[in-house]
Amino acid sequence: MIIVLKPEASESEVDHIIDRLRDLGLKSQISTGQERTIIGVIGDDRILHNQPLTALPGVESVLPILAPWKLVSREFKKEATIIDVGGVKIGAKKLVIMAGPCAVERLELTVGIAHEVKASGAAILRGGAYKPRTSPYSFQGLGREGLDYLVEARKQTGLPVVSEILDTRDIELFLEKADIIQIGARNMQNFELLKEVGAYDKPVLLKRGLSATIKEFLLSAEYIMSRGNQNVMLCERGIRTFETQYRNTLDLAAIPTLKELSHLPVIVDPSHATGKWDLVAPMSKAAVAAGADGLLIEVHSNPECALCDGEESIKPSKFKALMADLRNIAKAVGREL
Amino acid sequence: MIIVLKPEASESEVDHIIDRLRDLGLKSQISTGQERTIIGVIGDDRILHNQPLTALPGVESVLPILAPWKLVSREFKKEATIIDVGGVKIGAKKLVIMAGPCAVERLELTVGIAHEVKASGAAILRGGAYKPRTSPYSFQGLGREGLDYLVEARKQTGLPVVSEILDTRDIELFLEKADIIQIGARNMQNFELLKEVGAYDKPVLLKRGLSATIKEFLLSAEYIMSRGNQNVMLCERGIRTFETQYRNTLDLAAIPTLKELSHLPVIVDPSHATGKWDLVAPMSKAAVAAGADGLLIEVHSNPECALCDGEESIKPSKFKALMADLRNIAKAVGREL
Amino acid sequence: MIIVLKPEASESEVDHIIDRLRDLGLKSQISTGQERTIIGVIGDDRILHNQPLTALPGVESVLPILAPWKLVSREFKKEATIIDVGGVKIGAKKLVIMAGPCAVERLELTVGIAHEVKASGAAILRGGAYKPRTSPYSFQGLGREGLDYLVEARKQTGLPVVSEILDTRDIELFLEKADIIQIGARNMQNFELLKEVGAYDKPVLLKRGLSATIKEFLLSAEYIMSRGNQNVMLCERGIRTFETQYRNTLDLAAIPTLKELSHLPVIVDPSHATGKWDLVAPMSKAAVAAGADGLLIEVHSNPECALCDGEESIKPSKFKALMADLRNIAKAVGREL
Amino acid sequence: MIIVLKPEASESEVDHIIDRLRDLGLKSQISTGQERTIIGVIGDDRILHNQPLTALPGVESVLPILAPWKLVSREFKKEATIIDVGGVKIGAKKLVIMAGPCAVERLELTVGIAHEVKASGAAILRGGAYKPRTSPYSFQGLGREGLDYLVEARKQTGLPVVSEILDTRDIELFLEKADIIQIGARNMQNFELLKEVGAYDKPVLLKRGLSATIKEFLLSAEYIMSRGNQNVMLCERGIRTFETQYRNTLDLAAIPTLKELSHLPVIVDPSHATGKWDLVAPMSKAAVAAGADGLLIEVHSNPECALCDGEESIKPSKFKALMADLRNIAKAVGREL
Repeated sequence: MIIVLKPEASESEVDHIIDRLRDLGLKSQISTGQERTIIGVIGDDRILHNQPLTALPGVESVLPILAPWKLVSREFKKEATIIDVGGVKIGAKKLVIMAGPCAVERLELTVGIAHEVKASGAAILRGGAYKPRTSPYSFQGLGREGLDYLVEARKQTGLPVVSEILDTRDIELFLEKADIIQIGARNMQNFELLKEVGAYDKPVLLKRGLSATIKEFLLSAEYIMSRGNQNVMLCERGIRTFETQYRNTLDLAAIPTLKELSHLPVIVDPSHATGKWDLVAPMSKAAVAAGADGLLIEVHSNPECALCDGEESIKPSKFKALMADLRNIAKAVGREL
Repeated sequence: MIIVLKPEASESEVDHIIDRLRDLGLKSQISTGQERTIIGVIGDDRILHNQPLTALPGVESVLPILAPWKLVSREFKKEATIIDVGGVKIGAKKLVIMAGPCAVERLELTVGIAHEVKASGAAILRGGAYKPRTSPYSFQGLGREGLDYLVEARKQTGLPVVSEILDTRDIELFLEKADIIQIGARNMQNFELLKEVGAYDKPVLLKRGLSATIKEFLLSAEYIMSRGNQNVMLCERGIRTFETQYRNTLDLAAIPTLKELSHLPVIVDPSHATGKWDLVAPMSKAAVAAGADGLLIEVHSNPECALCDGEESIKPSKFKALMADLRNIAKAVGREL
Repeated sequence: MIIVLKPEASESEVDHIIDRLRDLGLKSQISTGQERTIIGVIGDDRILHNQPLTALPGVESVLPILAPWKLVSREFKKEATIIDVGGVKIGAKKLVIMAGPCAVERLELTVGIAHEVKASGAAILRGGAYKPRTSPYSFQGLGREGLDYLVEARKQTGLPVVSEILDTRDIELFLEKADIIQIGARNMQNFELLKEVGAYDKPVLLKRGLSATIKEFLLSAEYIMSRGNQNVMLCERGIRTFETQYRNTLDLAAIPTLKELSHLPVIVDPSHATGKWDLVAPMSKAAVAAGADGLLIEVHSNPECALCDGEESIKPSKFKALMADLRNIAKAVGREL
Repeated sequence: MIIVLKPEASESEVDHIIDRLRDLGLKSQISTGQERTIIGVIGDDRILHNQPLTALPGVESVLPILAPWKLVSREFKKEATIIDVGGVKIGAKKLVIMAGPCAVERLELTVGIAHEVKASGAAILRGGAYKPRTSPYSFQGLGREGLDYLVEARKQTGLPVVSEILDTRDIELFLEKADIIQIGARNMQNFELLKEVGAYDKPVLLKRGLSATIKEFLLSAEYIMSRGNQNVMLCERGIRTFETQYRNTLDLAAIPTLKELSHLPVIVDPSHATGKWDLVAPMSKAAVAAGADGLLIEVHSNPECALCDGEESIKPSKFKALMADLRNIAKAVGREL
C-alpha cells in the first residue's frame, strides 16, 4: 500500500503515521518526490483494509497495491476450477447450458419444459421456487412445493437442478433438494446468506449484483470460499446503467476479466440481463464468443402466461434453434457444446 | 395501463390481446391513431404488474398509468406520518438527528459518544452491532454483545437506539434490544427480511439501495407496510454513479420527491453517502435545506482508530459545531432543531 | 401521446389542456378510468416534443407513443442501408473491418500499419489526425499533416480512410481528404458539427456518446439525415458506468436493438470501449456473434511507444490471428469476412 | 507515479521499463515488497500522462500520484478566484443569481423577464440564443437575433448577460454581445471550442458534462486556462444516473469538492439538473447551504408556452419568494444575497 502525503503535511504528522503503521506490524519506506512525499508500506495490504488511514492528519490519499481477495484469485490457484454437479462438469471445455422457466408454476409444465430443454442439449434445469419480486403484490413463488416439482423433474429427466435461496432459514431445504444453490443479484451482498452457503460444499451459483463492481463480486465469492466452500461459479447477469431500452446492460467484458483475475467458472444469464426475449439469442451467442463457460436461459412453453418474467422467456422451439447456433460458435472459439 | 400495438399487428392478434384482458377481468378500449393503435385498459393497473403483456404477439410497448404501490403513497394517505420512538417524534416540525459510531466497539467508548452527541442535541443513538462489510476479512461487528452496549448506552443517556439487522434469524433479538431496526442499503431488496420486520410494529429505518430507483425504494417500503408495520422511515444514503471522487452520489432531489409521492418521513445519511468526513457538514446542511426530516451522522471520538468507516466519521467537537449551523438552516426553512 | 391527469385535476384545468391541444392542431379523446383520467392525443406526436405539456396545471405525466425520429427508423425504411465507400460495402453480408493506429504519428509508420492490416483482411484504414484528449497536455494529433499521411497510405494500399473531425471549420479539409468522416463520442451531441456533415453526402461514422441512450444516439443520426446525408453508420464504443475495471462498458445489446429500430449499419469499437488490448479479441468476437456489421480496431506496431492509447492497441500479428478467429465466428452467424 | 509490476515480471522486463523511464528523463526507485515489486517514478507525473505504460510487458497497473491539472488547482493558487462581470463579483461573499428564460423567444418577453428577475435580486440575465436540442425537430433558438434581444435587455436593465455558444465560428459574435460565454454540458469536451474561448479573457461559465467526472471537469477548465483565459467559473448541473424520476441527478457534493480542489467559483443550475419546476426551489436552497457561489435559474412568465424547457421554469412570482428564502439560508452559512 502507498500512502500519499499532503504537500503541507508536517513532520509530526509523518511521525504519527509511521507510528500507527508500526503498531499494526508494518514497515514504512519514505520517498520524497518533487511535489509529494509518499510512504510505501511493507507487509500485508489486507491488514490495512480495516484501517481508516485517510482519517490520519496529513494523508492525501491511499493507493492499494494488492487485490483484497485471495482464495478466488488466479494468482493463488493457477488452474481453472471445474465443478462437478452430478456428473456435469462446469468450467471444462464443454459448455454447460442451464435452462428452464423463471418460476416453477405447475408440476406438468415444469417436467414438460425439463424434457424439452434436455432434448435440445441443456445439462441443468433452472427454476425459481422462491422469487424475489420488486413488488409485494407480484407472484412470490411456490416455495417448498416448487422445490418438490424440481426434484420430480430431476427424477424424470436426470437433469440436476439449480434454484435460488432467499433466506438463511431455508438452508437445510436447499441442501436436501437442490444440486446448485443460486444466490441472486439482489442478495450478492447479503453476507449472512453467503456465510451460510459457505459452510457446506454444495455448489453455489453466485450472481453479480445489479451495481456490483468486479471487485465486489469477487469479494462476495471470497466470502463463500473463506468459509470453506470452494464450489463457486460466477454469473454475469447485467448491470444497472442509465440505458432504459433493456432491463440491464449485459457486461460481457466481465467474462475475460473474471477469468483472468479468478480461476472460477463464469456463467452468463442473457434473459435477466436484457429482459427481452428477442435479445436472448444474440446475447447468448456473444457470451459464448467472449469465452463464457455456460449460460442460464429462461425457457417457457407459453411465455405470455408465465407468472414471472414472460417477456424474457423463449419457447422450446427457439431454444432448440439457438442451441444449434451456439454449437457453431462454441466450435469457432475452441469449445464444445 | 395503455398497450401500444405494433403498426403491423394483425386483427387476430388484437382479438387475442382483448381476450387475455377479459380473462383477467379488465375492460379494453381501442383507439386508432394516425400511426399507432392503442388499447386503454380499464381496471386496476396493479393486476397487470404480474402479466407479461409485452410477450403477447402484436404488442409494441406497455405504458403503466398508476404507481405500483398503495400504502406508502401520499395519494392514499394525505397527512405526513409521524413516528414516535420513545417520545422522539420523527417526521414532525422538529428535525431528528441520529448520531453515533459506525460500529459499536467498546462499552465505555459507546457510552461516551452517546453522552457527547446527546449533549449536542442528537435525539437518537446510532451504532452497528452487525456490520455488512464488502470483504470477509474486515471487522464484522460485535454482534449480540454490541447490542448490549447500545442498551447500556440507552440506559445511561435515555437516547433510543437504531441498529442494523442482517439476518431474519435475529429478529427476536432486535425486537428486544433496538428501538428502531435499520435495514441497510445492501438489504433493501432482501425481501424475506422486509417481510420479517413487516410483521411487527417496531419502527424501521429503510435505507435506499445503492442502485435503487425511487420506485424500487418505495416498493420495498410497501413490502414492509403491506405486512402490517406502518412505522417506516425512508433513508437516502447516496447512489452509485460513475463518479469516484466520493463513495456515492448523495441524491438530495430524492427528498422533495419522496415527500411528494409518499407520506413517510425522510432521513438522510451524509456519512455513508460521501465516505469523507469533510463532506459530512456541507451535505448535512444541504439535506436540511432540501427538506429532510432528520439526519443519520457518524460520530467517533477517535476516527483514525475506528474499526469501521473512520474516514467518514466526525469528532464530537465538529458534530457540536455542525449542530449549531444546522439549527440556523432549519429555522431558515421553517423547521426546528 | 397520452396525457395522464392528476386525480385532483379540475374541470377548468382539463378544458385548458384541450384548448392548448386544439391550438396546436391536435384532437383529444378523454377516457375516464377508475383512478385516473387520461387524454389521448390524436395527431403527430412529434409536434408535441416541443411543448412543455407537464407544465400545464392538472397534468401528472405525459407518455409518448411514437418514437421521436423518422428517417433513421426501420419503420420508415424496411431494407437495410448499405453504404458504398470506394467499393467497400458497409452493411452487407460481408463484415467490414476498419483498423489502424489510434493517432497518426509518422508517415512510414502509418503506411506500414496500413499494409499490414490490409494483408490481414482489413478493408478500411483508421487513424486520428485531430485527437480529442481529456488533458490539454496530451498529444493533440498532427492535424492537417496527419490527414496527408492517411491520403498517402490510401494511395499506396488502396484502403479508404476514416478519420475524426473536431471542428466545423475543418469540413472542407475532411471532404477532400477522408473517405468516411468520424464524429467521436464526445461530439455526438455537438449539433452544429452534425448539421455540418449532414449537408454533404460523404459517409459519416457516428459514435455513440459516453452516456448517450439509444434514443439520443438515433436522434443524433436523425440530425445528420434530416440535413440530407443518408450515409450514416452507427458505432457502439462503450458507455460510462460505475465499473472501473475497464475504461467503459461495451453495450453489445445495442447491436440487435439498433438494427431492429433502424436500417443503418452498426459498427463496434472494442478498443476504445475497453481501453485494454487483451480485451479487444474477446469483445471483437462477441460483437460479431451479436450481429455487428463491422469493427473498428486499433492496431499499432509498437503500442508501448504509441503517442495515444497504446494500452488498447494490438500488434499486427495479434490482429492477423484475431481476423482468422473472426472469420469462423462470422460464418457461424451467417456472415462473411 | 507508481508502477506496480506483475508477480511474474522478468528481470529483463524490469530493465526495459527502467530504460523507457530514463529515455523520458525520469528517475526510478525500485522497492520489493512481499508480494509485489513496485517502481516509484521521480519527476513530473504529467510527462507520463502521454505514455501508455500499461502497454509495457510486466506492468500490472500504474497509479498516478499527482493530479493531472495545474492552473485550476487550489495547490497552485491558494486564494479563491473572483471574477468581475460588469461590476458583479462572482466568487465573493455575496452570492450571484443568474436568472432568465431557457431560450430567448421574443423581445418584449425577454426584457419583461429581465426586469422582473432584477427586481427580485438577480444580478445576471441568462437566455439561450443558440439551443442544443436532442431532436433536430425541436426549436433551435433565434440565433443572432436572440443575442440582440439580450443586448437590448441588458441596455434596459443594466444586467450583464450569459448565453451559450455552440460553434467555434460564432466566437466573434459572442465576444461582442455576451458578458459571459456559456459552454454547455454537451460541449464540455468539445476541445476546439474550449481552446477558442481560452484565447480571450471574456468570462466563461463551463458546465459539467452529463457524465463527466470531477477530474474531467477540471481538465476541461484547464484547457481554457492553459490558453490564457483565467476567468472560468464551474457549473454543476446534474449528472446522468440510472434514476429516471428526474432528468439528472444533481451532485451537490461536487460543490465542496470542487472548492477544495480548485480556486474557481462554483455555480449550480437546479433547473436543468432536475427538469422539474417544483424541484428548483428545494435544490436551490440545498445548493446554497452546501456552499455554492451562485445559481443559474430558469424563469419564464408563461412556462406552459415556453418554446424550450417549460417544465423546469418557474414563474417570476415563485422566483421572488425563492429569493427571500435563499437570503435566509445564505445568512445561515455566512454568505450574503
